[in-house]
Amino acid sequence: MDRTAYRLADIVARFGGQVMGDAETRIQQIGTLEKAGAGQIAFLANAKYRKQLEGSQASAVILSIADADATSIPRIVCDNPYSYFARLSAFLNPLRDYAPGIHPSAVIGKGAQISPQAHIGPQVTVGEGAVIGAGTVVMAGCVIGDNTALGESTRLYPRVSVYHDCIIGNHVIVHSGAVIGSDGFGMAWENGRWLKIPQIGRVLIGDHVEIGANTTIDRGALDDTVIEEDVKLDNQIQVAHNVRIGAHTAIAGCVGIAGSAVIGKYCRIGGSAGILGHLSIADGVEISSFTLVGKSIREKGVYSGIYPFSDKETWLKSAAHLRHLDDMFARIKQLEKEIESLKGEKV
Amino acid sequence: MDRTAYRLADIVARFGGQVMGDAETRIQQIGTLEKAGAGQIAFLANAKYRKQLEGSQASAVILSIADADATSIPRIVCDNPYSYFARLSAFLNPLRDYAPGIHPSAVIGKGAQISPQAHIGPQVTVGEGAVIGAGTVVMAGCVIGDNTALGESTRLYPRVSVYHDCIIGNHVIVHSGAVIGSDGFGMAWENGRWLKIPQIGRVLIGDHVEIGANTTIDRGALDDTVIEEDVKLDNQIQVAHNVRIGAHTAIAGCVGIAGSAVIGKYCRIGGSAGILGHLSIADGVEISSFTLVGKSIREKGVYSGIYPFSDKETWLKSAAHLRHLDDMFARIKQLEKEIESLKGEKV
Amino acid sequence: MDRTAYRLADIVARFGGQVMGDAETRIQQIGTLEKAGAGQIAFLANAKYRKQLEGSQASAVILSIADADATSIPRIVCDNPYSYFARLSAFLNPLRDYAPGIHPSAVIGKGAQISPQAHIGPQVTVGEGAVIGAGTVVMAGCVIGDNTALGESTRLYPRVSVYHDCIIGNHVIVHSGAVIGSDGFGMAWENGRWLKIPQIGRVLIGDHVEIGANTTIDRGALDDTVIEEDVKLDNQIQVAHNVRIGAHTAIAGCVGIAGSAVIGKYCRIGGSAGILGHLSIADGVEISSFTLVGKSIREKGVYSGIYPFSDKETWLKSAAHLRHLDDMFARIKQLEKEIESLKGEKV
Repeated sequence: MDRTAYRLADIVARFGGQVMGDAETRIQQIGTLEKAGAGQIAFLANAKYRKQLEGSQASAVILSIADADATSIPRIVCDNPYSYFARLSAFLNPLRDYAPGIHPSAVIGKGAQISPQAHIGPQVTVGEGAVIGAGTVVMAGCVIGDNTALGESTRLYPRVSVYHDCIIGNHVIVHSGAVIGSDGFGMAWENGRWLKIPQIGRVLIGDHVEIGANTTIDRGALDDTVIEEDVKLDNQIQVAHNVRIGAHTAIAGCVGIAGSAVIGKYCRIGGSAGILGHLSIADGVEISSFTLVGKSIREKGVYSGIYPFSDKETWLKSAAHLRHLDDMFARIKQLEKEIESLKGEKV
Repeated sequence: MDRTAYRLADIVARFGGQVMGDAETRIQQIGTLEKAGAGQIAFLANAKYRKQLEGSQASAVILSIADADATSIPRIVCDNPYSYFARLSAFLNPLRDYAPGIHPSAVIGKGAQISPQAHIGPQVTVGEGAVIGAGTVVMAGCVIGDNTALGESTRLYPRVSVYHDCIIGNHVIVHSGAVIGSDGFGMAWENGRWLKIPQIGRVLIGDHVEIGANTTIDRGALDDTVIEEDVKLDNQIQVAHNVRIGAHTAIAGCVGIAGSAVIGKYCRIGGSAGILGHLSIADGVEISSFTLVGKSIREKGVYSGIYPFSDKETWLKSAAHLRHLDDMFARIKQLEKEIESLKGEKV
Repeated sequence: MDRTAYRLADIVARFGGQVMGDAETRIQQIGTLEKAGAGQIAFLANAKYRKQLEGSQASAVILSIADADATSIPRIVCDNPYSYFARLSAFLNPLRDYAPGIHPSAVIGKGAQISPQAHIGPQVTVGEGAVIGAGTVVMAGCVIGDNTALGESTRLYPRVSVYHDCIIGNHVIVHSGAVIGSDGFGMAWENGRWLKIPQIGRVLIGDHVEIGANTTIDRGALDDTVIEEDVKLDNQIQVAHNVRIGAHTAIAGCVGIAGSAVIGKYCRIGGSAGILGHLSIADGVEISSFTLVGKSIREKGVYSGIYPFSDKETWLKSAAHLRHLDDMFARIKQLEKEIESLKGEKV
């Protein structure tokens, strides 16, 4: 593919920042400090990687003001090199364009309203009464349920399922294999067997949400499951029925969120963490990877609960004592009493 | 959608229980105490939520005998409000009906026997010699392997894969993205590389099983993987080869079950728990979320192993000592010895 | 299905080893010691199961030299019964053959180069410029992105997604629902909202790799995500952007590997383990199930970090003390000081 080359001068005209060095330097693509070569611009967003500047073969670099003099490579100096890089990369690497229209192999239900500006790919099934907005791309093999609505400029990668009656906003991205609107895990125990509880709520997904590959979001049991705007969900996350995730929260891969948990805005949750059901988590909370949150968190802060790993022998020794902490504690108490009594005898 | 309205009198005639208050009250739908409005019936199944009765705008409520007088809202009093609610909701919210027949875009293999009462949706592929029973619904994009049999009144949501030679019972529900019958993780190490072991067992799934979205169930290596009747599996569960899960067991999301584990009947396993391979778990065992079961459990009971979370600083302090529990224990022993010796000197 | 019967004499002629007992014994299939019957050959690879030899109804057994006299059943004696069994089973149970050709329901993009020896199943979508090698089988409902290349003799089970520009080697097996090349979880925080970072790297997958059902492998952010040859990934594994997994490493189900982690060759990682981002793990490292690796591992060895489970009451007692280990430690120190001082007074 032929790429257009842009002068650093053109780039700062568009995105701000200042050029230091040759403003005529042309770049076509982004790269890492380590691997970027001719025609590529790298970035330094973390002082930890400053030593990589030295050997870099990049044609140009994006830097913070603090690092402006750390190299002689032609450079763009700006306030936030990481977001500068993000914007520039989005400009250099626009999402692939999909021509509007419905692929002849797609199956469209009665009464579906598909914008003439939408793209419906091969082997897609769209349910009855579904609504698909302008600029939205539904790629191969997706299945959209009856009466579900997708907003505008939303993109579903191949093989996404959205069940019936869900509402997905604008500028949403859903990756391959994700399932939205499946039944929540609800049943009643009666006479020695399970009775299924119909899951009649919906899933509501706000604007600018991104949902990772093979992530699952269950529909509400009675009320709705809600993902607010600008939430970012990585791959293989499980969101149970009636969960609410606040705006701008980011959740890493493999996290499980149990039913009716309410997660605040601006939270960050590490990979493989878990949130038990019916809990509330305040705005701005950060949860470490592999941590199970077993009760509500009322205060902003960082929370962790990870068993520290070690070589297996060391672990075996410590783990063996773990069950006996109660006994250990009682023995310390007893020792303290005996010391007190020995000291008493002295007096 | 126009919904039929039922009088409380009609409902108790059908489902039992007693009306208190106006038996002519008409309801069309179920709701929560918090959100139900006119025409909706809510339920109180847990005394914890009794205070929500006060402000409820529901037209009627389902209550236990103990709570019969806790409100003046027209109400149905019964033994088990939760299962009453489940039955009533299933009546008010029947599963969508799918007309029998095979969608013209479906691809049907040679010798497949599909009941004329089955529904085969768009873009479905049915393998050679597969059997699909009456009343069974196979939704868009499912792939059914050669010689696999689906029973009657079973429902596969969009994009389910069932590999060849598997047997799925009656009244089974499988949610979108689930994979049944994929190869187990079996290989032999030989001369510095892996040798794949053919997985020639099957998956057998009993009646009334429900399988969540993106859950995976591997086929047996030599013998079969077996899911007994009325087992309920939530989303994103991994069931390895040769596992057996006993009847009526319910397993929450993201659980991993390693090869040849045998899980009893009536068990309940919390989210993100793990079961190591070749273990046995007795009937009626309950495993907490996030707990790894590393050896067999012979007795009914509740079992847990969760690192309690806390603010990160508290966690760091305790975690730092965890590796030194063995040393701590030795020091307590030493202290005890010294106290004994000090006490001895006194005598 | 009619199966060919092979004499033990035929088998050792082909695979080596020695027959003890009747070399004319005919076998058609493999089975377990417990369940194999007439016409089946079982194997004993682990001395732990030696007592199962007694009651076995198998027509023949594969044994090590050490166990050669442990039974009178006709037997094949060899160095490595487990790999012998693997080879023999692969011979008796060859993968199903798929006839070359493109199913008429498949949708093939412009400029795609599909070997006439490849099999493209129903409802498959192949992107523009994609390349598919000889002997490769792409089963129903798979979606292959633009310019992606699949090597030779590779097999994609139904409903696999491979995004654009990825490269998959020869003799690779990918199970149903797997997603390869989805966007990594990359975004920059700017002015109170997330800015998506284009993920412009690829996924490169070496020869003889096997990828489990519903496993996800994200494409690189700038550089590539790399899975080296003969890596074996079980189901529901999440591999984030820019990860590298060394040759011959085997990873069990539900493992999460965060961005830019580098895992060595010949590693074995247990189920539901986690690897944090930007870490390095040496060759030959073994990680226990449920263990979070939170810093780099430089030395070969076995590493663990699992909270040992117990009955819930025991767990509650120990867990309650866990947050107070720091205090416990301080009290032990204090006790030691006091003892010293008491002992001092004696002198």
